[in-house]
Amino acid sequence: MSLIVNRRDIDFLFYEVGDLDEILRNGSYTEFDRGSIDAVLDLAQNMAERAFLPFAGALDANEPAFDGEKVSMMPQVGEALYAFAEAGFFAAGFDQEIGGLGLPSVVCQAVQGMFACANLSVAGYSFLTVAAANLLNECGDAEQKAMFLPKMLEGKWFGTMCLSEPQAGSSLSDIKTMATPTDDGHYRITGSKMWISGGEQEISENIVHMVLAKIPGGPPGVKGISLFIVPKYRVNLDGSVGEKNNVSLIGLNHKMGYRGTTNCALNFGEAGECRGYLVGEPHQGLKYMFNMMNEARLAVGAGATMSALGGYLYSLQYARERLQGRHPGDKDPASPQIAIIEHADVKRLLMTQKAYVEGALALLYYCATLVDRQRLSTDDDERWELKLLLDILTPVAKSWPSEFCLEANKHAIQVLGGYGYTRDYPVERHYRDNRINAIHEGTHGIQGLDLLGRKVRIHDGAALKLLTAEIEKTLAAASTTVGREGEARTLKEALDQCHSTIMRISQCSDVNRALANATPFLDAFGHVVIGWMWLRLAIAAINGLESGKEADKDFYRGKIAACRFFFNYELPKTEHVFRLVGSLDDTCLTVTPESFIGE
Amino acid sequence: MSLIVNRRDIDFLFYEVGDLDEILRNGSYTEFDRGSIDAVLDLAQNMAERAFLPFAGALDANEPAFDGEKVSMMPQVGEALYAFAEAGFFAAGFDQEIGGLGLPSVVCQAVQGMFACANLSVAGYSFLTVAAANLLNECGDAEQKAMFLPKMLEGKWFGTMCLSEPQAGSSLSDIKTMATPTDDGHYRITGSKMWISGGEQEISENIVHMVLAKIPGGPPGVKGISLFIVPKYRVNLDGSVGEKNNVSLIGLNHKMGYRGTTNCALNFGEAGECRGYLVGEPHQGLKYMFNMMNEARLAVGAGATMSALGGYLYSLQYARERLQGRHPGDKDPASPQIAIIEHADVKRLLMTQKAYVEGALALLYYCATLVDRQRLSTDDDERWELKLLLDILTPVAKSWPSEFCLEANKHAIQVLGGYGYTRDYPVERHYRDNRINAIHEGTHGIQGLDLLGRKVRIHDGAALKLLTAEIEKTLAAASTTVGREGEARTLKEALDQCHSTIMRISQCSDVNRALANATPFLDAFGHVVIGWMWLRLAIAAINGLESGKEADKDFYRGKIAACRFFFNYELPKTEHVFRLVGSLDDTCLTVTPESFIGE
Repeated sequence: MSLIVNRRDIDFLFYEVGDLDEILRNGSYTEFDRGSIDAVLDLAQNMAERAFLPFAGALDANEPAFDGEKVSMMPQVGEALYAFAEAGFFAAGFDQEIGGLGLPSVVCQAVQGMFACANLSVAGYSFLTVAAANLLNECGDAEQKAMFLPKMLEGKWFGTMCLSEPQAGSSLSDIKTMATPTDDGHYRITGSKMWISGGEQEISENIVHMVLAKIPGGPPGVKGISLFIVPKYRVNLDGSVGEKNNVSLIGLNHKMGYRGTTNCALNFGEAGECRGYLVGEPHQGLKYMFNMMNEARLAVGAGATMSALGGYLYSLQYARERLQGRHPGDKDPASPQIAIIEHADVKRLLMTQKAYVEGALALLYYCATLVDRQRLSTDDDERWELKLLLDILTPVAKSWPSEFCLEANKHAIQVLGGYGYTRDYPVERHYRDNRINAIHEGTHGIQGLDLLGRKVRIHDGAALKLLTAEIEKTLAAASTTVGREGEARTLKEALDQCHSTIMRISQCSDVNRALANATPFLDAFGHVVIGWMWLRLAIAAINGLESGKEADKDFYRGKIAACRFFFNYELPKTEHVFRLVGSLDDTCLTVTPESFIGE
Repeated sequence: MSLIVNRRDIDFLFYEVGDLDEILRNGSYTEFDRGSIDAVLDLAQNMAERAFLPFAGALDANEPAFDGEKVSMMPQVGEALYAFAEAGFFAAGFDQEIGGLGLPSVVCQAVQGMFACANLSVAGYSFLTVAAANLLNECGDAEQKAMFLPKMLEGKWFGTMCLSEPQAGSSLSDIKTMATPTDDGHYRITGSKMWISGGEQEISENIVHMVLAKIPGGPPGVKGISLFIVPKYRVNLDGSVGEKNNVSLIGLNHKMGYRGTTNCALNFGEAGECRGYLVGEPHQGLKYMFNMMNEARLAVGAGATMSALGGYLYSLQYARERLQGRHPGDKDPASPQIAIIEHADVKRLLMTQKAYVEGALALLYYCATLVDRQRLSTDDDERWELKLLLDILTPVAKSWPSEFCLEANKHAIQVLGGYGYTRDYPVERHYRDNRINAIHEGTHGIQGLDLLGRKVRIHDGAALKLLTAEIEKTLAAASTTVGREGEARTLKEALDQCHSTIMRISQCSDVNRALANATPFLDAFGHVVIGWMWLRLAIAAINGLESGKEADKDFYRGKIAACRFFFNYELPKTEHVFRLVGSLDDTCLTVTPESFIGE
């Protein structure tokens, strides 16, 4: 078995749960078919297994270092990324007119996923570059695109996003980096940025930083934030790399995990003029950046899911091979030991991982398909609806995997026991890698505020209505599917309770109190969404069992069992949480700082 | 504020929740009073803060190394342990007749806790030595005690316990290490042991391994296991350290956390005769070892709690000082930023930590008091009851902190955001340290089997009845305490549901199915126990509020708030779990290994 992907599951999500066949019949996607998509996946899997996976543990143990002059790291990082660039994967999702491969977003999800599972830290550089290139492609002018985009799509120049500062991580309204206009058309950038992933490295010929800064005299707070392109090296008129642009590395942050991706404190303009190029209109930077940030949030959810998939596959393989103990009913020490996968509690640890990982994966593929359908649609109303649906699902797709796929990683360690706690096995590394995901690109708490404070309300609850309608389609299908009727009722009850909770919150005029339990709400709302996903998966599996190949029967039965697991073990957790949130509980809100330890 | 202890909380647990005053009026404890106990705590706190805490991060970054000849580590480890020995702390809990300080167990809990919170890895060596010495003291003969105990109590020789083998971690019935009798009275030990904490180091003059092995011709399985003393160096007749005893280090395990305590693969008798000395009767080894293991299990729970306390205190201090953002209702970017402890979700993260850490701490102190009362009691029936109560609480005291205090550590990282994910702050280290606790000394799953398969049933449910009676005493008190009546009803309902779940399980004749959800049961049972603890704490806090000092009011209000938090946010989680377990759900039990990923 592969330790980075379950290809059968990708096919299931593409063609049985999702509608990739339908997508491939539209727009510019028509030049792809199952055969060519398979070939792309084969290429990606092969490269991820051979060029990314083998040194993931070594890279974790030998993180990038900064000697005050240059950042050095294992040469395999560059080699892997050159191969990735060579195959065109930096350009996978971009339109062919600008040099991309033009693959559907849901296919890119699968491709990027294999690399992230194999070696998250290396995949990080490519993801950041693609996100920065997308932002430029959306918001840059023709000249900027001509200068930067082709190099980024070729993987010759990498990209970053520079939002946070040492004093302002979650509170962008308080950033201090300045961009002062000059007579030469560019801006002079001064200030410091913090937590910049990929902020320095010697792999790519240049680094294109997408930087948030304030133009003097602009409005205060987030309304005065503008977006700038700030290259590490200036670019000559002929497109070649020129002199240094005075972006200097203050130092590398040494992290718990995700160690192979440099994470930097950067200084702009300390040693001399640092030139920035305004993207779009002044003071619109945050709006532009949010295009990239929503994409980044989905990518964070995907990264969390892939870290958990890595742990799940490894612990599954281990549990099948490792012999230890006997069933509780068997007291005879002379009887042979059984594979630990035979123990009920090990099965539970594996099943929990399966339910979390594959449920999260289904949501991420669903979201990617929304992106594809937006691209294909020519109907403004439909596109608006698809966008709204993606808007309300984004905080869930970012946060739910960050929380529950981390829990899956915890279980993977448990399956291996003492061995899982050592650095000789990859499961503890995946766990450490995954812990960042509830923090970056908007903390778990911020996602909760986004969902309960904004997304469920926008346009008079239009996004929530659309999502409800989608869930109800599945409920209708499930209620006529033998064996799924009970789950349909259970999900309907949870959905109704979710709605009445939102109603109660909306009636509370004290916004601080209304949002005091936004994070528990986020988790419970996510469970409803993932319950919906599992029902979709189970319905597709039942269809597959009836009509599919004999060889796939175990696969389908596993899906049905995991759906049952989610509904029996997981979804019931939401009941008391919705009750709690709806009760406007103020226990935490009203506790004073002094009373925590009494001093 | 101290980053390793809340002394006010210790006093509260000693004298307001617990009955240390009463204990100090009995037996050999009469020579202590509050003043002398305070002096011991002062000494411990001072030493832990000055000699243990400062290099905890450095030790994590510079773990012990083995060059094939010797193990080396930071010299501060030895210095700290020599100071600890000098102060008599190795002997803290032992009777004065054998050279101990004779402190009550609950005081030792507090003392050891400060060192564990300050530097878990260093404290590990002392804990293992104390546990081995306790075992020897319980089960060794006069000659053995005379030879080994004084050196261990002085902290000159350290101890270990050697149970697991590479092929048998959880399944002791399958150990292969042999002990062959010789004509000289000792046994010849041959075999390998794995996961031996403190198994090799150069700090102490000798290492006293307590080793499980099989005597040829003995019964199969656990009934053929005997216990041996196997010193690293043989001991001369005059008590001095002699020649090597052929215990050799195969290698060190490199762990995710808890890095400063060496964890070893050991070989016995490969290079020459390795002498072992039988403890007690042949084939009774597992029974003896379980004396030590129960103590070890309580210590694991205490270690987990202390790792979480370290994270809690650090993140609390940070949240009070770090300025970031504004309340949801405040949109003015010109208004000053607030300390993050003002944010409702940060309060929730801190309150969750408080509820987990202080709830676990209350249980551990309660268990330690049971040990003290056993020691003091002269009534056989009473002692038997105290022992039973401790028996049923031990899997909870081990497992609940391993699970929920790890969650607390996760939250501590979250409070610090990106900074929490870096190795510059201690919170991620505590999280890594803590992850081992659900694995060693009997995995989480094994604790569940112990509780549901054995402890709730032993002696016709006598332990469960005793525990229920104790909880009901608190319920009676709570039902007449203003403000706590609702919580008393809630806890009673949870307790009743717990009982009916146990009843349903006991009626199932298929033992594999009955125990299939033993782990979820363990967690839910633990929540009932910790809910009981919080009710005890809240009642004591209400008494304190009425009669206590003005300066303590914040402290008491914090306790009452945390009780409310536990009953509103946590205890309701048990309802669906008990329902699930009682339904004999077989979703996990019946899933086949092939269906997880369909191959």
